[in-house]
Order: sequence, then structure tokens, then C-alpha cells
Amino acid sequence: MSLISLTTDMGNSGFYAASVKAAILGALPGATIVDVTHSIRPFHVSAAAFTLKNVYKQFPEGSIHIVSVDALNSPHSRVLAIQTEGHYFIGPDNGLFSLVFAHPPAEVYEIILAPDPASLAFITKDIMVKSAVHIAKGVNLAEIGRIYKNYIQLTAWQPIYNDASIRTSVVYIDEYGNCIFNLEKTLFEQVAKGRKFEIDVKRNPIEIISKTYNDVGGGELVALFAGSGLLEIAINRGNIAELLGLKEGDSVLITFED
Amino acid sequence: MSLISLTTDMGNSGFYAASVKAAILGALPGATIVDVTHSIRPFHVSAAAFTLKNVYKQFPEGSIHIVSVDALNSPHSRVLAIQTEGHYFIGPDNGLFSLVFAHPPAEVYEIILAPDPASLAFITKDIMVKSAVHIAKGVNLAEIGRIYKNYIQLTAWQPIYNDASIRTSVVYIDEYGNCIFNLEKTLFEQVAKGRKFEIDVKRNPIEIISKTYNDVGGGELVALFAGSGLLEIAINRGNIAELLGLKEGDSVLITFED
Amino acid sequence: MSLISLTTDMGNSGFYAASVKAAILGALPGATIVDVTHSIRPFHVSAAAFTLKNVYKQFPEGSIHIVSVDALNSPHSRVLAIQTEGHYFIGPDNGLFSLVFAHPPAEVYEIILAPDPASLAFITKDIMVKSAVHIAKGVNLAEIGRIYKNYIQLTAWQPIYNDASIRTSVVYIDEYGNCIFNLEKTLFEQVAKGRKFEIDVKRNPIEIISKTYNDVGGGELVALFAGSGLLEIAINRGNIAELLGLKEGDSVLITFED
Repeated sequence: MSLISLTTDMGNSGFYAASVKAAILGALPGATIVDVTHSIRPFHVSAAAFTLKNVYKQFPEGSIHIVSVDALNSPHSRVLAIQTEGHYFIGPDNGLFSLVFAHPPAEVYEIILAPDPASLAFITKDIMVKSAVHIAKGVNLAEIGRIYKNYIQLTAWQPIYNDASIRTSVVYIDEYGNCIFNLEKTLFEQVAKGRKFEIDVKRNPIEIISKTYNDVGGGELVALFAGSGLLEIAINRGNIAELLGLKEGDSVLITFED
Repeated sequence: MSLISLTTDMGNSGFYAASVKAAILGALPGATIVDVTHSIRPFHVSAAAFTLKNVYKQFPEGSIHIVSVDALNSPHSRVLAIQTEGHYFIGPDNGLFSLVFAHPPAEVYEIILAPDPASLAFITKDIMVKSAVHIAKGVNLAEIGRIYKNYIQLTAWQPIYNDASIRTSVVYIDEYGNCIFNLEKTLFEQVAKGRKFEIDVKRNPIEIISKTYNDVGGGELVALFAGSGLLEIAINRGNIAELLGLKEGDSVLITFED
Repeated sequence: MSLISLTTDMGNSGFYAASVKAAILGALPGATIVDVTHSIRPFHVSAAAFTLKNVYKQFPEGSIHIVSVDALNSPHSRVLAIQTEGHYFIGPDNGLFSLVFAHPPAEVYEIILAPDPASLAFITKDIMVKSAVHIAKGVNLAEIGRIYKNYIQLTAWQPIYNDASIRTSVVYIDEYGNCIFNLEKTLFEQVAKGRKFEIDVKRNPIEIISKTYNDVGGGELVALFAGSGLLEIAINRGNIAELLGLKEGDSVLITFED
């Protein structure tokens, strides 16, 4: 039973995503398709990577994840296939995958199924779907691709820190307006060393890390380390991004007591 | 064959809803999942209840309905499981279910699967999905929960009426902008006693109840009792909510002839 | 294994589309349902037709396509069923299907399952879904309908042209803001006869037809014939509809060298 997930910027109002699903079902009748989302902001590679990174481990092993965001911004519209941690990944060589995995996957293949991809529709529906169908039928990656070592590497924004402070940036804003920052709990604790601190969120101070949103009252600011292991700043039962005008890329300063 | 429906406020653009679906498919390969909607306005319990109330009977018996809206606004993040009318329901103890059923369900269980829910993600993906998986596998509610009598009751807005008039409020605005009111056909007829009447919709009068939108011309106001049995006021082939600025909670006055 | 696709204007935030899916799954447990889209602009028959036209051939033969857009704008709420090119189509007699097929389908049936459709919900969920279920179970169209010859015909906008120029209009704007025009490649080539030309896009000239978006630099205008065979004008990695304010119905003039 094949399980194929789709993460794209194709939207839900047109026929592109449906064409991809129809092509899958034509080749694999009864396949289970999960739309992770088709609402990645067009060309927004880092959002696609963040989404995939946070969801793929939830799927059962053997799942095949197609990611099609900014697929034409790849040299020669190259399509990669990666097998790692029991999952398969298919997507463009535009740096997206370098933001997904904590450890570089051992084997990355360039798909060699088709010589002349002519359009975005072609790449996703034809090359990516065809690759997924081969994988679902048990074909090895080596049969549809060749080992590819020099895939594009992007560098994720990193927090800037010293012993006295950390400056960290919003990397993702979720459906509730909660802001997720590029700060891992481990780095925070390594710098904090148990000291008191203050997070300055557009002049609103937060002085504790909570365990759940409900540790503060409704309408109050709350900071916590979310399921992703990253710092999240929210308003309990409110939309902090809207209320404080926070956008992706905005930063906050955390200062630690002397 | 398990059928699980999802009604949440998680949105379609992030990875939360996909994580829930992945967790279901990991435990129940080949399960049928129907996204009722992930676009309930965040924390909007009454909209979730209205949606569920109008859709669950359409599903085949034995279906399992997960509802996750404002799940943290439940004492100790309590999760309920209810079996009634041949369907199963899983959701928070925040009053939502008290707005769904015409008759209080006989047996309501509090799920006792996990001692310390830490986050919204945990509650929906872990406790609710785990409960659904148990139910799908034939486990009795009594094995995963304990009878719970004091679940939170909310009171739905009721129309205000006397022999001469009814004041009724918008409880739902659909995708077409049609406005659905908290007035059952039976109450309308009981007060009307066959008399002439006038519905005052922001100074636009309606004097008849139609059977279909097309009983009036394009662009004209129409009142009818929709599939839900509730009064609906619409513009044939138009968007009345937008044109007249009607919002949830707005009311209209129906006056009856002496 | 039944495969049913849905193309509607019901939206994703309410319970209408879920009711339709629930009704299908109640009658056909395990059926595969593909949401082509529920986001057709309400009553926008031509957008529904364009969407269906571009997607149905991607589905495997035997697929059943339910299209419910402006279903009440059909005389007596007539529902049609069409079998053509190995696919089944169910939708209203409002002219929609006349815009989908290049050649008029040989046999068009009027569904005679129910005498008195009372509401939009009734027509889609009851008549259309019931028809789809019959078809999925192998019932012939002749058993649930009668031959119907006078279905409503709409005329698609056509480009206006002479030997020196073509005026063509936007018929569709996709999720990326790319604009698709009502100009087939064959007509373009027939008029062009290999001559130089200039497409005047709101005073921005385009003088070549590209093969892919990436034939021009990021942020530059590009014209190509897309998968649909129609002229598409885009900005590589940009949103031309937003940037130049192009809307459906807007036209551009293509002038050819003497």
C-alpha cells in the first residue's frame, strides 16, 4: 500500500495539484495520497523545507514525499531522489533538502528518467510522479537515477549569540499566528546556564519559558519550546503575529542576567 | 474499513493537519480520512459545533469524528469520547459537544490514555488520534476512558419571541455568503400560525418563505428553510453577507400581522 | 475501485463539500475521492469548465467527474450525465459542459432520478452523488437518464484576428498569477507565418515565445504555450497578474511585422 505525501506551492484553487494526484492514481490505483499542503508561498523554499522537516517523521516508514516548490530554480531542472531514515524524498535540486535533514543523507540520486523537462507541470507531474511510482513499485533509486554528490546547499539562518545575549529570528508563522524562531532549546540552555533572562518581543518582555500556552492567562504572551524543539512565542488564545506585526525574518533579543 | 473525519482550526497551509493524518495512517494503513474542514476560525467552538452537527449524519454509521478546536480550553486538557446515534466523537471538554446533539448523549467518556498532555499538538495527534485508533480497532470506550457526567455545557443563542414577533440571529455564514439563523422551522410556524409576516433584513423586507433560491430573480433577497431546518436568508446568485454587511451575531426582526 | 473527482464552488471551510464526500463514502465504502477544487468562484461556470477541461484527461479511464457550479441556474435544475473519451461527467445543464469538450459528446443524458430537487445541497449531494454511485456500480446511463439533445450551449470568448494582428483575452489566472489566454498555438502560428511579432502586455513588449519560464531572467516577462496549448504570459518567479493588474477578460494585442 503506497503512501505518497505532497508538499507544493500549487495552491488548492486550480487544477495543478489535482493533475498530480490524478497521475499518481492512474499509475497506482488505490494509493493513499496525503496533501501536506499546496499553500507554500510560491518559490518559498525555506518554508517548504521547514514544513517537510516537521512532518515527515510522523508518516509511516516507506512513505514517499514529493516536494515541488520552485522546481524550475534548479540547474537543468534537476530532480533529486533521496532515501534516508526509512523515507523517500523527491524534489528539486534547489537547496530545499539541505534544510530538511539534521545529517546529510548518505545517498542522493539525480533522477534520469526524462531528458528534456519543458515546464513546471512536466517536472512535477511527469518526472516526480513517475519517480514516485517506480519507488512505490519497488524499483531501486540506482535504477532511475545516478549518485549525485554536489547537490545545492543552503544555509539556514542561525541565531547570533554571545555569553550575554541571543538574537534569534522568526522562521515560521503558523495558522494561529504563533511565531517559531531559529533557536534550539539546547543552544538556549547552553547560553542561559540557568540564569534569569528577558526576551524583548517588540518591547513586551517575557521572563519565563512555559510548558504550555495555558500556563499564562488568555491574551498574555507566552514563550515555550514547541514540538519542533524550537523557541515559539505566542499569545494564549490570540494571534501574536497579527497583534504585534511580527513577520518571518523579524528578530528578538534575549538578554541574560550578569 | 475505518472512516475518520477531521474538523479542526489547524488550517491547510501548515503541517499540523498533515501530522494528524500521518499519525492516523501510521496506525491504520488504508484508513479513509475525510477533512471536513481545517478552517474553523481559531478557538471558534460554536462554528465547529455547527459544522459537525450539520455533517455527521451524512457519514456512514461507525464513522469516527475527531473535532479539535480550542482543545486547550478544557479543564486539564480533558478529551472526551462519545458514542451516540451509531457514530463516535472525540474532542475537547470545552462545551463543543453540548451544541452538537439535540438530545444529550447517554454515555460520555473522559479519555484516560495519557497523564500529562503538554501541548495542542500532543492532545490532537496523540490523545485524540490514539483514541480513534483504539475505537477503529474495536476497543470499547470503557477501556480507554471513564464515564464522565459533568462535561461542560454551553447554551446556544436562542431566538427571542412573543406572539407578535421573533428576533433571530445569524449563527453561520456559508461560502456563498448565505446567512443561517438560529430559528427552527417548527418555532417559526408555531408563532406564525399561518399569518402574514415581514422579515426586516437591514431595512429590506421579505414577506414569503421560498422553497428554493430560484423562486426569486437573480440578485433578489430570498428566505427559506435550508437542509439544516434553520432559517436561511440569501441573495439568489449573490453574497448577502457582503452586500448587506451581515455578520455572525447580527439579528433580524420578524413581525407578524395582528 | 471507483474514482470520483469533485469540482465545485462549495469552498473548503464549511460542511457542504464534506457532506458530498460523506454521502459518496456511505454508498461506496473505500471509494477514492479527489478534490479537484472546491474553490471555483461561486457561479463562475467558465472557470469550472476550464479547470475540468485541463484536468480530466489526467485521470484514469472510468473516472467519474462531478462538477457542481451554479447548479441551480439550470432549467428545472436539470442534471446531465455524459460518457465520453472513457470518462463520466455529472453536472448541471447550465452550459458548463459545452465549454469542456473539443467535440460535442455523442450521448448526453438527463438524469431522471428524482422529481423535485429542492435545494443546491439536494442536487449535488442527492442527485449527482446518486448518479455517480449508480455509474460506479456499473449501471448504464440509459437506466438513470434519458437522451437529452438540447443541452445549453455557451460560446467561449474567441480571439479577434486578421492578417496583421490578434487580440486575445485572459481566460484564467493560475495560483502563481500566470495569465492564460484564449489563443491556441495553432491559430497563433497560422497568423504569424513565421513573422516577427510583438505582444503588448500593458505597454510591456514581448517579442519571442519561450519554451520554459527560465528562458528569461528572474523578474522578466515571458510568453509561452503551456501544457493546455494556450498562450500563457508570466513573470519568471513573479506574479504578473498582481504586478500589472491583469484580470480575467483583459486583452493584449499581438501585432505582426508587415
